[in-house]
Amino acid sequence: MNKFAVATEVLKKALGEEAVRTDAEALFAASFDNTKLSFLPEAVVFPQDEAAIATLLKLANEHEVPVTVRGAGSGTTGAAAPVCGGWVLDLSRWTQCEIDADAGLAIVGPGVVTQAISDAARPHGLFYPPDPASVKYCTIGGNIATNAGGLRAAKYGVTRDYVVALEGFLPTGEKVRWGANVKKFVSGYNLRDLWVGAEGTLGIVTRASLRLAPVPEARHTFLCMFADDASGLRAAQALLRERINPSVLEFMDALSVRCALEEKGETISGIEAGDAVLLVEADGSRGELAAAIGKIRAWAERYARAFRETDLPDEAEKLWEIRRACSPAMFRLADSKLNEDIVVPIESYLPLFEAMRAVTRETGLQTPIFGHAADGNFHVHIMYNRGNAEERALAQEAIFRVMKAVVELGGVITGEHGIGLAKSPFLALQHTPAEIAAMKAVKKALDPKNILGRGKIFESFDVWKHTPVSVRLPWEHKKS
Amino acid sequence: MNKFAVATEVLKKALGEEAVRTDAEALFAASFDNTKLSFLPEAVVFPQDEAAIATLLKLANEHEVPVTVRGAGSGTTGAAAPVCGGWVLDLSRWTQCEIDADAGLAIVGPGVVTQAISDAARPHGLFYPPDPASVKYCTIGGNIATNAGGLRAAKYGVTRDYVVALEGFLPTGEKVRWGANVKKFVSGYNLRDLWVGAEGTLGIVTRASLRLAPVPEARHTFLCMFADDASGLRAAQALLRERINPSVLEFMDALSVRCALEEKGETISGIEAGDAVLLVEADGSRGELAAAIGKIRAWAERYARAFRETDLPDEAEKLWEIRRACSPAMFRLADSKLNEDIVVPIESYLPLFEAMRAVTRETGLQTPIFGHAADGNFHVHIMYNRGNAEERALAQEAIFRVMKAVVELGGVITGEHGIGLAKSPFLALQHTPAEIAAMKAVKKALDPKNILGRGKIFESFDVWKHTPVSVRLPWEHKKS
Repeated sequence: MNKFAVATEVLKKALGEEAVRTDAEALFAASFDNTKLSFLPEAVVFPQDEAAIATLLKLANEHEVPVTVRGAGSGTTGAAAPVCGGWVLDLSRWTQCEIDADAGLAIVGPGVVTQAISDAARPHGLFYPPDPASVKYCTIGGNIATNAGGLRAAKYGVTRDYVVALEGFLPTGEKVRWGANVKKFVSGYNLRDLWVGAEGTLGIVTRASLRLAPVPEARHTFLCMFADDASGLRAAQALLRERINPSVLEFMDALSVRCALEEKGETISGIEAGDAVLLVEADGSRGELAAAIGKIRAWAERYARAFRETDLPDEAEKLWEIRRACSPAMFRLADSKLNEDIVVPIESYLPLFEAMRAVTRETGLQTPIFGHAADGNFHVHIMYNRGNAEERALAQEAIFRVMKAVVELGGVITGEHGIGLAKSPFLALQHTPAEIAAMKAVKKALDPKNILGRGKIFESFDVWKHTPVSVRLPWEHKKS
Repeated sequence: MNKFAVATEVLKKALGEEAVRTDAEALFAASFDNTKLSFLPEAVVFPQDEAAIATLLKLANEHEVPVTVRGAGSGTTGAAAPVCGGWVLDLSRWTQCEIDADAGLAIVGPGVVTQAISDAARPHGLFYPPDPASVKYCTIGGNIATNAGGLRAAKYGVTRDYVVALEGFLPTGEKVRWGANVKKFVSGYNLRDLWVGAEGTLGIVTRASLRLAPVPEARHTFLCMFADDASGLRAAQALLRERINPSVLEFMDALSVRCALEEKGETISGIEAGDAVLLVEADGSRGELAAAIGKIRAWAERYARAFRETDLPDEAEKLWEIRRACSPAMFRLADSKLNEDIVVPIESYLPLFEAMRAVTRETGLQTPIFGHAADGNFHVHIMYNRGNAEERALAQEAIFRVMKAVVELGGVITGEHGIGLAKSPFLALQHTPAEIAAMKAVKKALDPKNILGRGKIFESFDVWKHTPVSVRLPWEHKKS
């Protein structure tokens, strides 16, 4: 008999059989996220209303059952995997989404898919700016849990910049609301922003008020080619110094680009093997944009080996092809990758690349890099073959070196994914014992029985000791 | 002998006589803030370095001495008044201010005056956007403590939107750093944003990294007159629906305007007695601005009784005259005012004014209103004569009714000043017992001995039982 079987029976009686699933299929589906690290829960709960969540939390505290909150399960750190068993609280059906056009707000449930918010806002001339790569399938609850960023964050900000108010439950089961539908709020402590990025371990969001922004009138896209990585990175730094504030500034290193060209088997947008690439986009009112385009063009003429530009959406789509091709094409280098969403300050761009190349020299593993050059949030990859024990060991060593280098360069080990299970071994590289003790004290104050997200963030987890399950997720372009 | 005399002797020995002042003049000067509610501390400490702060906090915890952090003392809620005695930690000399132009950051000490940051950034084409009315004398430490906003917050955001990283001390004396000099950071809990707005009760900031913004190329100012308050408020709502995003949208009600005109004794910018006024400013690149000006002009032609406009700085200064004249002119109505920085959602603008007028009808006290109409942060005033016991009692009743109305209208009792002592009686109107319990649990977790800001925020304080000291503060235009 399972550890929490008695509690689960009580839960079933309280919420009804339909709300509490314990069949093998439901348990397996709720056992992992995008990391595919699978841990079976005791039950998967689909609450009908807030009263059900309150009841679940009260019982969880009474019986000390861990609770893992789940949306789409597209997270990349194992935060949604019920590593200590217990109950999964699935909020993916909480998809309400109302637009208050006068106030410029979206009032949403945690299960709404991020893209759906912009879709609902667009008829009012508004959109929801944060755009993680997973925007078409991730849920806003997960975005709030990880303070999701994305491509346009340097100009438009991250999830936290758009969360105006949150409603939901404390780990102990009391209903609370942080903030109101206004932009200024300094009454009491700011637990709203403490919830944002807490990976579902300090509270459960049932409703969020999100600020919307006016849809820009127009955009203009540039694709710029550079002779090598260093030239491209220096050009990105020069562009930022011009204070143009591009909405997109995606860097792709020569290795990522070469993979994409080889995978495609033909040229893409006039890019040559060996090129590093910057995809630059500016948006805004037509008046604002005219000045920005002139400045970007002058910059490209000065720094790039060659460049293309367009203001036509179809043409822009073609210029984006290289960016979309990079990630899947990396599997030409090895069958598995570690993908880390690190961030470094602008002065550390070149040292970061040097550190990654040193890793390649010393381990033999390839390290393609692309990412958001306007905010230093590069996605660095370590490619290895999973079946090769030596490469696995080298990758394990390499990732630790990368994290250490990032912190030494004044950066952060995670810019938009969070810690979860996967990054827990690196937490102590980023934070001092006093900092971690303060965080744990806050956790204990709000969740004395350690109900929400037990085993996450603060307990070091060794991903290398676990074999991912073999499933194909709906959003996968290729096995990862 | 005072309660903390022994501890103070130990402190003097540890930090040196120069750092620890106990003379009457120093104690009195550190005993109050802008509220003039005075409580004498045992000592005022001017730490030379971080080690001194660590030592002070360790001793404070050992001897359970309350510590009150102080900058310019321009706060408006009594947060800087040492209500429980103990030690005042004066950081007004910590005025370091370095600009990292490439990163677009200012690295500052807590004692730097807010305006000085923009002054230092301007040669690099940058500025620090949050602009509380006190920008020329308040310190950034206090801005962080209260998440200060100001006139331009609807377009540019509040202090929290610019705080990238904070360095400082936990209440228990350990050095910590929250965030890094990068825009994306989701490692561990977000204690940075918990510190912002915590009024110095959860930690002591010794260094802050602040994001800067490019100085706008140009600005354009409109002064618009309306037949009455309701027409002006409806016009403000209409402007917001146009999504023009003005940098300034200051509303002055007919009563505030009449006071200013009477005080001046002549007309101001063609404003007539009975007019309500909106001061509208747009800024940005010239291209961006051209479109905005056209839209604002069309809006003014449709809604305003009359309007003036200019893009010349000297002319703009004249259009601002009415705004600057309003606040001091209110003392024509009575010798004292309650000034509350409440915020209501856009749909509640007219109901708020109705609620304030109801207060006037029922108490006979005048309630002039002006403020930031782009974010609903209206400064509502209750005018009364301090020497008149009946008016004092009516004012006391009126303020409670106003706070209750604001919360019922979906708003917040403080948008930029904080709770401190003055608003502590209203905290339970804004927050449920569960919410307050969660805040207090966090406080206890980080500050188990209740060292920082003891007696603030969570303990109800009756300002009416205390007589303000009679001093003239450097920034006062008239006795308040």
